[in-house]
Order: sequence, then structure tokens, then C-alpha cells
Amino acid sequence: MVVRPSGRDFDQMREVKITRQYTCHAEGSVLVEFGNTKVICTASVDASVPRFLRGKNQGWVTAEYGMLPRSTGSRMDREAARGKQSGRTQEIQRLIGRALRAAVDLEKLGEHTIQIDCDVIQADGGTRTASITGACVALVDALRYLQREKMIKSDPLKQMIASVSVGVYQGQPVLDLDYPEDSSAETDMNVVMTAQGGFIEVQGTAEGAPYSQEELFAMLELAKKGCNELFAAQMQALAE
Amino acid sequence: MVVRPSGRDFDQMREVKITRQYTCHAEGSVLVEFGNTKVICTASVDASVPRFLRGKNQGWVTAEYGMLPRSTGSRMDREAARGKQSGRTQEIQRLIGRALRAAVDLEKLGEHTIQIDCDVIQADGGTRTASITGACVALVDALRYLQREKMIKSDPLKQMIASVSVGVYQGQPVLDLDYPEDSSAETDMNVVMTAQGGFIEVQGTAEGAPYSQEELFAMLELAKKGCNELFAAQMQALAE
Amino acid sequence: MVVRPSGRDFDQMREVKITRQYTCHAEGSVLVEFGNTKVICTASVDASVPRFLRGKNQGWVTAEYGMLPRSTGSRMDREAARGKQSGRTQEIQRLIGRALRAAVDLEKLGEHTIQIDCDVIQADGGTRTASITGACVALVDALRYLQREKMIKSDPLKQMIASVSVGVYQGQPVLDLDYPEDSSAETDMNVVMTAQGGFIEVQGTAEGAPYSQEELFAMLELAKKGCNELFAAQMQALAE
Amino acid sequence: MVVRPSGRDFDQMREVKITRQYTCHAEGSVLVEFGNTKVICTASVDASVPRFLRGKNQGWVTAEYGMLPRSTGSRMDREAARGKQSGRTQEIQRLIGRALRAAVDLEKLGEHTIQIDCDVIQADGGTRTASITGACVALVDALRYLQREKMIKSDPLKQMIASVSVGVYQGQPVLDLDYPEDSSAETDMNVVMTAQGGFIEVQGTAEGAPYSQEELFAMLELAKKGCNELFAAQMQALAE
Amino acid sequence: MVVRPSGRDFDQMREVKITRQYTCHAEGSVLVEFGNTKVICTASVDASVPRFLRGKNQGWVTAEYGMLPRSTGSRMDREAARGKQSGRTQEIQRLIGRALRAAVDLEKLGEHTIQIDCDVIQADGGTRTASITGACVALVDALRYLQREKMIKSDPLKQMIASVSVGVYQGQPVLDLDYPEDSSAETDMNVVMTAQGGFIEVQGTAEGAPYSQEELFAMLELAKKGCNELFAAQMQALAE
Amino acid sequence: MVVRPSGRDFDQMREVKITRQYTCHAEGSVLVEFGNTKVICTASVDASVPRFLRGKNQGWVTAEYGMLPRSTGSRMDREAARGKQSGRTQEIQRLIGRALRAAVDLEKLGEHTIQIDCDVIQADGGTRTASITGACVALVDALRYLQREKMIKSDPLKQMIASVSVGVYQGQPVLDLDYPEDSSAETDMNVVMTAQGGFIEVQGTAEGAPYSQEELFAMLELAKKGCNELFAAQMQALAE
Repeated sequence: MVVRPSGRDFDQMREVKITRQYTCHAEGSVLVEFGNTKVICTASVDASVPRFLRGKNQGWVTAEYGMLPRSTGSRMDREAARGKQSGRTQEIQRLIGRALRAAVDLEKLGEHTIQIDCDVIQADGGTRTASITGACVALVDALRYLQREKMIKSDPLKQMIASVSVGVYQGQPVLDLDYPEDSSAETDMNVVMTAQGGFIEVQGTAEGAPYSQEELFAMLELAKKGCNELFAAQMQALAE
Repeated sequence: MVVRPSGRDFDQMREVKITRQYTCHAEGSVLVEFGNTKVICTASVDASVPRFLRGKNQGWVTAEYGMLPRSTGSRMDREAARGKQSGRTQEIQRLIGRALRAAVDLEKLGEHTIQIDCDVIQADGGTRTASITGACVALVDALRYLQREKMIKSDPLKQMIASVSVGVYQGQPVLDLDYPEDSSAETDMNVVMTAQGGFIEVQGTAEGAPYSQEELFAMLELAKKGCNELFAAQMQALAE
Repeated sequence: MVVRPSGRDFDQMREVKITRQYTCHAEGSVLVEFGNTKVICTASVDASVPRFLRGKNQGWVTAEYGMLPRSTGSRMDREAARGKQSGRTQEIQRLIGRALRAAVDLEKLGEHTIQIDCDVIQADGGTRTASITGACVALVDALRYLQREKMIKSDPLKQMIASVSVGVYQGQPVLDLDYPEDSSAETDMNVVMTAQGGFIEVQGTAEGAPYSQEELFAMLELAKKGCNELFAAQMQALAE
Repeated sequence: MVVRPSGRDFDQMREVKITRQYTCHAEGSVLVEFGNTKVICTASVDASVPRFLRGKNQGWVTAEYGMLPRSTGSRMDREAARGKQSGRTQEIQRLIGRALRAAVDLEKLGEHTIQIDCDVIQADGGTRTASITGACVALVDALRYLQREKMIKSDPLKQMIASVSVGVYQGQPVLDLDYPEDSSAETDMNVVMTAQGGFIEVQGTAEGAPYSQEELFAMLELAKKGCNELFAAQMQALAE
Repeated sequence: MVVRPSGRDFDQMREVKITRQYTCHAEGSVLVEFGNTKVICTASVDASVPRFLRGKNQGWVTAEYGMLPRSTGSRMDREAARGKQSGRTQEIQRLIGRALRAAVDLEKLGEHTIQIDCDVIQADGGTRTASITGACVALVDALRYLQREKMIKSDPLKQMIASVSVGVYQGQPVLDLDYPEDSSAETDMNVVMTAQGGFIEVQGTAEGAPYSQEELFAMLELAKKGCNELFAAQMQALAE
Repeated sequence: MVVRPSGRDFDQMREVKITRQYTCHAEGSVLVEFGNTKVICTASVDASVPRFLRGKNQGWVTAEYGMLPRSTGSRMDREAARGKQSGRTQEIQRLIGRALRAAVDLEKLGEHTIQIDCDVIQADGGTRTASITGACVALVDALRYLQREKMIKSDPLKQMIASVSVGVYQGQPVLDLDYPEDSSAETDMNVVMTAQGGFIEVQGTAEGAPYSQEELFAMLELAKKGCNELFAAQMQALAE
């Protein structure tokens, strides 16, 4: 029987907290916490669209991601000072943007852009999945703002999305990897799902040995369980 | 019954060609063709390792990816002229490097780096999967070079890897998407496998509607079939 | 009689809060709040010095500054995505680093670098003065860490420093400008002082009409009052 | 009694020369010399304004600053070759631009931009103060050009500005620091004034020990004396 | 009597091959081979012109050049990854663009841009001269496309151009240097000519000792002979 | 009979002035003037060599080139602000470096680098030829410095070099083009020669119609005449 570093059960998530209106300027502002992983997710409304969408009667959702230099155990270089975003950063922000666009009917959004910013202030594994989960709540707040301000007529939200990581740790499929697990897991998989149970993204990477189809299926089951708990947390936060 | 733009069966790959010794300078040089998609994959041996590995008695495999500006239907900006690689390019080259490291025992490689370059000279969908499949053959040629030159003592090859794309096109799971399919598919999934049937990467993205677990499983079956054909093509090329 | 937008007296600071151990990884981590201005200040210890100081038996203190894109009323471009730090950012981080070096005996610090990061999560004027004031507390925590870990023998702290902005608003010298005042003040001056009453920096800029010597002296008096309140807040936080 | 390296009295400036029409293409072109510090200041007229000012019926004044690589004792890297301007360069050019905008009524300037370039061909301390002082003369020549060419109707010049450095050298407040003094002064302060005696900028930095209010006041008195001499030199040059 | 490393006569070119329609997307696509030097030259038609030519009723021809990282004996850094094109690359692509503009009547081209891309897939000396020679054929195909598509009314081709390198190798003027000759030649000269015998570019550089007027004249004679052979090869390819 | 815009004879150079010790810090510092073209050329001695030459018992000469933004009729962007050097700048500085290396015996130079900086303060055509001609004098001063300081034992100077432009203007070969001629010449050729009459560089470009062999020969004759006058001016300056 594998013991997880955190003592959690194999199918147990960390404590999840979602705090709305965390900062005061953004149309949507959420602090999301998956245990010690803490991310500020803001959604900013812009009354225009990127050049490639002009005149097409639709909106856009895009995302950027960053980590404070000392959000991690040892300090990372500041990307603004180095003058470029790492490949990892770009990969994550592309994933977040793609995932959130799946939540929105872009035609109903009209010619508005919602810019998502996910900034990690403390990292302990799972920053991209926490970002997606928190950003979806910030997105809903921004969509509510657009409706309240009569900038759009109907609700563009198609479905809530949430994301969680799963992996194989010492041969055992586990849910919601924290940093000690993530850095030694054989396989790491990030899953983005809809509240209706559909898949938006499945990204599974063997870090060491290849993984089998059985392990893949077991990880998917854990991911479904985790996402269901996240949808509940989102709903509770949005009801407050 | 869905008709694919190319007229292929839903589980039929495009014609695959693997040409070794395509250019004359590299230790491994392969032209890989998946139908109209053509990629030059070279493997270059460097008798040193990156700073973070120095003194650790192991080697490294890394990859870069590029497209000739007019490899595509309309000309793309040249990344060297724009002064940065796109997020897509970085994502692909990170994927290629990660996949090929799974093929190699880095300790047996000793303090050598194998630098993979995948340059697309003609694109018709599936450039990253063709790159991985061709690069693995170039990698083998570089490993043979190292052994022939007595730079290493034993063969670091752990397993062949190959990669193929699958997707859902007009509701039908299909194998090896070309550009017309790729640009209108609901779901696009890239799979990297080992010759023993293990998974190295599964990256499935819903471009439109979410995909179901049944579709996911159907795509995985197609991917297995495709990879098996690719392993055969690799073996044949390496036997020449 | 001039009424400040916030209703504060001309010599009244906003509420100041200094929270230590705000994030878990850094040797010093402080959330500093000047009213609605909120900055995370971390101090990271590195057991080396920049190249220009190697072999000189002294340490270094340096700083970087950033703002989350939506810390402000309208979203700013992310500097990491734009690929360079603005002139304003560089000016501020040079100021912070210079100010904090005045607090430390660099020889007693030995060959260690303390890297300060000031990241604004919510901005309402005075972000650079809040950064300096909070960073000095994070710095003390990092110096205590070095002593506790026996990495240095004696306390390198020479003196606490703090910083506040003063200005001329509608002809009235005022203390601690918030954003509505800052954006319409005739003169804006940032002052960095030591707890002993010495000046480290005085930077006064006429935004509209030039300012007179009388106004300059009045602003300096307000700055002294403000800094004294900040030193008390720092001491209280460090005593907890 | 402190002896200055140059033998000058504590309140004595270096010889100041202002040569107009130094190069032939610019609307205003000045060589300014503060002793061995030599700066070419040009003012270029552009019949447009930056995007953020379009349609606002006002003009703009902005500045750039550079040093020839071997203007200094040991060669500096060329910023164009390194691909970025240093923080120091940006800080100085922001200061020059801000200072010169204080000299001009931007509404009377109409929709024109005056671009100031200050290029140091020989450096011996005080390059930023010499730049501001010389650039103000080049600016006047550009404003005269605009009037002569009937591009504007009235003179936008509000007031002449000039700038000088002061400091504390071996405990003694001194005027107009040259490089040997600047590099070992305890305090360095740059002051920008108007011909009417108002302050545009006061930037005083303690390099070593903090400075007292008495020292601050003594430096301000020296700055006033120096600026008055500079205004006389500007007037004489403009009368020629 | 000097023996060339390749055994060729002093006035003998390497085998030249020009293959049209090498890739499928570009309006003109040519693989040009000068012995082991292989370059893919594409010509892409764009129905617009650069900003500086808008409204002038003329077209533009411009070029970019690149080398695959392992086109050379030892791997070069990828320029897209380094984030800038080398001075050599820029020099070559400026030369190619200038040379090809000499082949075209830009007014007859109308407001179209032809973008030339020369990408070296295998290098053995003379990549710039092969590029120019092959690109001229791709250019003709693009001009034919424009006429076939009725986008222009008359043929903008003024004259064919071709290019060859000559040099002084061990005191002997020789034609069409390959890499072993090029890297040890005393003088290297690239010549671009028109089919009518005029000169477009003569660029001769002494790598070691200066060259005499006699050597210069001898090299020019060889260049004429080489270009005539290249014009014949172009004509043959275009007739197919 | 063609009349040149300046009224000069077809074989007449502009007035040439070479002023040594123009700035005070550099080991060699020259102001060179070809009529209204004015360039500051400095030679800086560095007691090290680039990485690729370490341990080879030889020195290096390299060059950088820049133009002050308003050295030209209309202001150019500052390359340091744009973040990159133009292709033209790189081409010119590569030419200058190559030309000056031909003047020096790099082995006699020992492990020293001479860094040449050519900064154009006023441009009227021929900036690269003036730069080479002036830089060679600055180089000699730097070599004399090295000998005077006993840093090297023998004089590394092999030969003086000089450079001049020639061209075809309205069908007439002319010497030393100024800007009005340069911008409308059919052909522009830059020639670098040694004082012994050998060629270092010949770079002739047809801007409009191709040029004939007769024109090429006529231009070379003019270049010889011009360089001879430049060698005399260099000698006179070095004798002072």
C-alpha cells in the first residue's frame, strides 16, 4: 500500500478554497487554493477583439500565466527581466485559454475580449489545474458584469469547466498531485472536463516508464471524481 | 457514413516513407513523409552535456522544431526574422524532446548530447507526429555512430517510439489527420507510443464540442493500429 | 481648505498593515498594505554574489519589481509577454535596491546575495514606497534566517529604512498620495529615510507648475512624520 | 578644508560652453560642454504626435539619451549591439523628457512632436545635467524654426530650464561634480530648475551614509547658484 | 599547377541541377543544387506591398535566407531559437533581394509583393550564389502564376540573373568554390550578372593578402563563363 | 557633360580632414571628415581576445558602427531603442572590421583586441568609406600606444588601408559620392585598398541598370586616385 507524502488517500484532493472579489479592480477576481498552491485569477473585459476576429460578430477569451519569482522553493528568474516567457509558461497559458474558450459561446459574447490572468503566488504542484478551475469562476463574474452593464444580451456561458491533475506515484494512480508527488511521479496527467462529464483536454505524459492502458483508465476515473468535487466548490463560491 | 476528404478509410494511414542519410553532414539524417507532410529530421552528436547535467555521468537528448516559411498553404513569418519562436513551436519541440528521451537510457549515453532538429519542408497536418517518428530513426543512426566510433560501450536504445494523430471528424474517429481534416476536426489527439505498446504521451484536445470517454477509447485503438504500422516502417528503414 | 478625495487630513497616512510569513517558501515574505495598495515583498537568500563582487568578501542586495497586469484600474500589458520591462519598472527596482543596500552592512553579509522581489497585487498609488517599507521587513527576516542558520556571524542590519510619498495637491502639501491624488497632483515626491532621521533618497518631480522651496520644505516635514509612523509599524510587525 | 580633485572652489562650476548649429540637419543642434563632459543635443521636429495624444490638440516633447561606447574611461558595451537600453539610460532619458516638457506649453505646440536626442561624445560626470541644459537651447531653436516656418502661431516656450549636479564630497557640499568626485561622493543630487527659481526635479541619493537636512539645504543653495550661471550661458548662446 | 580539392579544372563548375515544383504550396518552388550545396528557393505571391510603397503603383521583391542547423559540418545554432538573425544572414538576404529586384520591372508587377525564401538544407560553399540562381527560376514561376491568374497584364521579367562565386585559391583564380576551397581561399568574390552580360553585383573580399587588378580581371572572366552556364541551366529548367 | 550637384569634377574628392586625439579617453580617437560627412572613430585596446581565439597567440580587430539619430536629413530611429541593429549597420560594421584586420599582423598584436567604434555624427554619403579611412588612423594610434606601453614588442601594422566610394552618376563615372549623388546614382561601388595598390574589398552594386565592364574599370581607376589622396591625408595626420 503506497503512502502519499501528504498522507492523503489515493483518491483524495487537497483542500480547495475559492475566494471571489479578491482584488478590487478586475471584473472577475478569484483567489484559488488547492492546498498550498495559491493562484490569483482575474478576468478583464475589453470592448474589442483581436485583429483576426474583427468584423466577425464574435468575442474572444485568452489567457496569460505567470509565477512570482519566489512562489517556488528556490527562486526562479523573473520572466519579464529575462525578456521572454519560457516554453512551459507559453504551453500553460495556451492550455488555459483553450480550456476557457470551451466554456463560452463566443458569438453570444459579442465583440468583447475577456483576458484571463493567472498569477501563481505560491506553488505546490497543480498550478495549471488550479488556474483553470479558478479562472472559470472569474470568467463567470466577468460574464455577469457584461450582462449587468447591458453590454451583452444573453449569457454566453455554455458550461462550467474544471481541471485536476492525476498521476501514477510509486505504481499507484493518485488524484491531485502536490509538488513532492509531482516531482517523482512516473506519469503526470492533466485533465480538463465539463460539468456534463465531457473531456476538453487530456494530457498525459510518462516521465519515466511508459504507462499502460489500464493505468490511463484508472487515472481518468480519478480525474472525474476530482472534477466533480471542483464543480461543487465552484458552485458554492458562485452562490455566495 | 463519413467520407474523409482524402477518400481514405477511417483507420487508414497516409503513405509513410522514411529515407535515411538524406543530408550528408549529420550523424543521423532522415526525410520522413506522411503523405504530403515532409520533415527533415537530423540527429547531431555533441560530446558535452548542458550545464545542469555536468558531472552526473549521463547524457541528454533535446529537440528543436521549425517550419520553412512556405511549407504551408499561405506563407508564415520566419521565426528567425520575428526574433522569437511561437508558443506552438516551443510546445512541439518540448514534446519531441520529451518523447525521444523516453527512447534512450541516458546513463548509457554517457556525457553526450544528441540534438534533434525537425524541419518541416512541406506541411499537410501531423507534422509533430511525423517529426517524432522520423527523429527516432535519426536517433538510432546517431546511437549507432557513437558505438561505431567507440564513444560509448553499449547501446542506449531502450525502445523505439512512434507517434500518430487521431481525431474525431464529423463524429467519426479517424486515424492520421491531414490538414483538411485537422482544421475542421472536433477533436485532435496526438499519441506517442513505445513498440511494446506503452503510452508515452496522450494529448487530446476538444476543438469544438467535448469528447466522450467512448470517443477517447476509440481514438486510442486507432492510435495503436497506426503506431504499429509506423514501427514496421521504422524497422524496414533501419534494416536497409 | 483643500478636501482630499479620501477625506484624510493633509498629514494623515492611509491604514498601514504589514503581514509577515505571507507565503511559505521565501526566507522573508511580507504582505504590505498602504490602504488599497497591496504588495508582496519577498527576500530570497542566495549563497553567491554577482560576478563583479566575487572575491571581495562582501554581499549584495538587489531588487526586482513587477505589477500583476490587473493590479490597476485598466489592465496593463504583462511585461514578460511584451519581452521587456518598462523604463518605469526599471527605475523603481533600481530605487528599491539602492534603498535597501543602505540598510545593510554588505561586508557583514559575507558572500551572500539577498534578492528582493516586490510584486504589486493591487495598486492605488504609492506602490514604490510601500514596496521599500515592506521589503525592509522581509530583508530583516532574511538576515535573521542567515544568523539562525549560522551562515553569518553578526547582524548586518545597519538601520531600518522606510519610504513614503508626499506631494502638492491643489496647492496643499499632503502625505501619502493615493491614486486619485497622485494622478492630479502638481508635485509628487518620494522620500526614503532611515530610522535615525537621515535621508537616503529624495525624488521630487513637478508634474505641472514648478514647486517652491517652501513647498519642498513642507513636503519634507510631512515625509518625516510619515516615515516615523512606518518605522513604528515595522517594529510592531517584527516584534510579533 | 576639502580640496577638490580639480582644484575648483566648492561652489565653482566647470567652464560651460554652448555651441549652436553644431550639426547641419537638425532643427536645433547644440554641443554643450561642462568641462570635459561633451554632449551633442539635437531637437527634431515631427509633424505628428504619439498615438495617445492624437486628436487632443496638443504637442509632445520626448527625449532619448545615449553614450558613445568610448565616451568613458573604459569602453562600455554599445546598447544597440546588446539589444537593449540599460536601466540607467532609460532613467536618464525619462528625466530629460520630463524636464523639457516643463519648459513648453504643449497646447501652443499644436500637433507636433519635438524629439530630443542627447548623445554623449565625452563623459566626465554630469552628463544628464549637461544634456538637459544643452537640450533646452536646442529646443528653443526648434521652437523658433516652427514659428519661422509658420507651423505654429505663438511661442510655446514657457520658461528656460537648466540642470546641475551637487553633492557631498568628503563632508563638503560641492557644485557640479566631475567624474572623480562623482565616483567617490557620499551624496549625489541632480537638480532641475526654472529661470524663475522654481524646482522641476530634485533627485538626491545617498551613496554611502544618509545625508542630513542641513546638507540637503546646502546642496540646494549651490544648485541655485549653478543654475543661475547656466541660465546666463544659455541666454548668451541664444543671443548670438 | 594547382590541384583543386575536388579535382575540377580551374574554370569548371560543379554539377548544377534545378528542380521546379519541389514543394507543393508555393507559387514558385525550386530545389537548386551546386554539387553538394542544396537550397530550397520558394517565391510566394502576396497581393499587397510594404507600407513605404503603398499607393505608388508598383510592386516589391524581397528575400529571406536561412540555413537548417545541421546543413553544415558542425551544427550551428538555430537563429529562431537565438532570437536574432546573424549579420551574415542579413547580409546575404539583402544581397538576394537586391539582385532579384534587378530582374523585375516593379511597375509592371503592380501592387504585389513576391517574397523569396532561400533555405539551405545542405551546405558546401556557394549557398548565396546558388540561392540567387535558383530563386530567379522560382521568381519566374511566380510571375507566370500572376499572369495565368490575370493578376497582372504584362510580364514584369526584365532579364534573367544568375550568380556564381570565384576566388583565388593557392594563387590560381578558380570558378565556383566549394567549402574546402572557400575556407582557405585568399580571395572570395561573388558576382551577380544578367543574361545580357551586365553586372548587378561584384563583391570581392581579400581574406588574406590583397588581390591585384590582374587577379580581379581573371576572376571576372571566370564569373562570366560560370554565369553563362547557369543561364543555360535556368533556361532548360524553365522549358520543362 | 554631366554636372555634379556639388560642382566638383568627376574625379575630385570632397575636402578631407583627419583630426587625431579628438576625444580624450580612447587609445586612438579620430574625427574624419569627407566634406559634410563627419565620423568619430575610436580605437580601444582590450588586453584579452574573444573566446574563439583564446590560447592561439594572436590578437583581434573588430568594429562597430552607428549613426546618431539626427545625423541624417530626417531623424532615424535609435537602434538601441528599437532593440536591434539594422541589416545595413551590421553589413557596414562587418566590412569595417574585415578591412582593418587586413592592415594588421594579428600574431604580432599578441593577445589583445582592438575594438573600433565608428559613430557618424553628420551624414552626407560615404559614411562607411570615411569610417574605414579614419579608423585606420585611430588604429595606428592604438598600435603606437601598445608599443609605447611595452605591451607588444614589434609594430603589427602591415599596411595602411583607405576606402572611397565611386559610382556611375547620369552615365558618368564619378569619385566620392555625396548624398545627393548617392541617392540617384545608377551604380555605387565601395573600394578598400592598401597603400601598395592592392585590393581588399570591391563592392559594386547596380541600383538601376546593370553596369558594364568598361564602367567597372573606369570606377576602379577613380578609386585608385581617391585612395592615393586619402593615404596622403592619413600620412600627414600621423606626422603631426
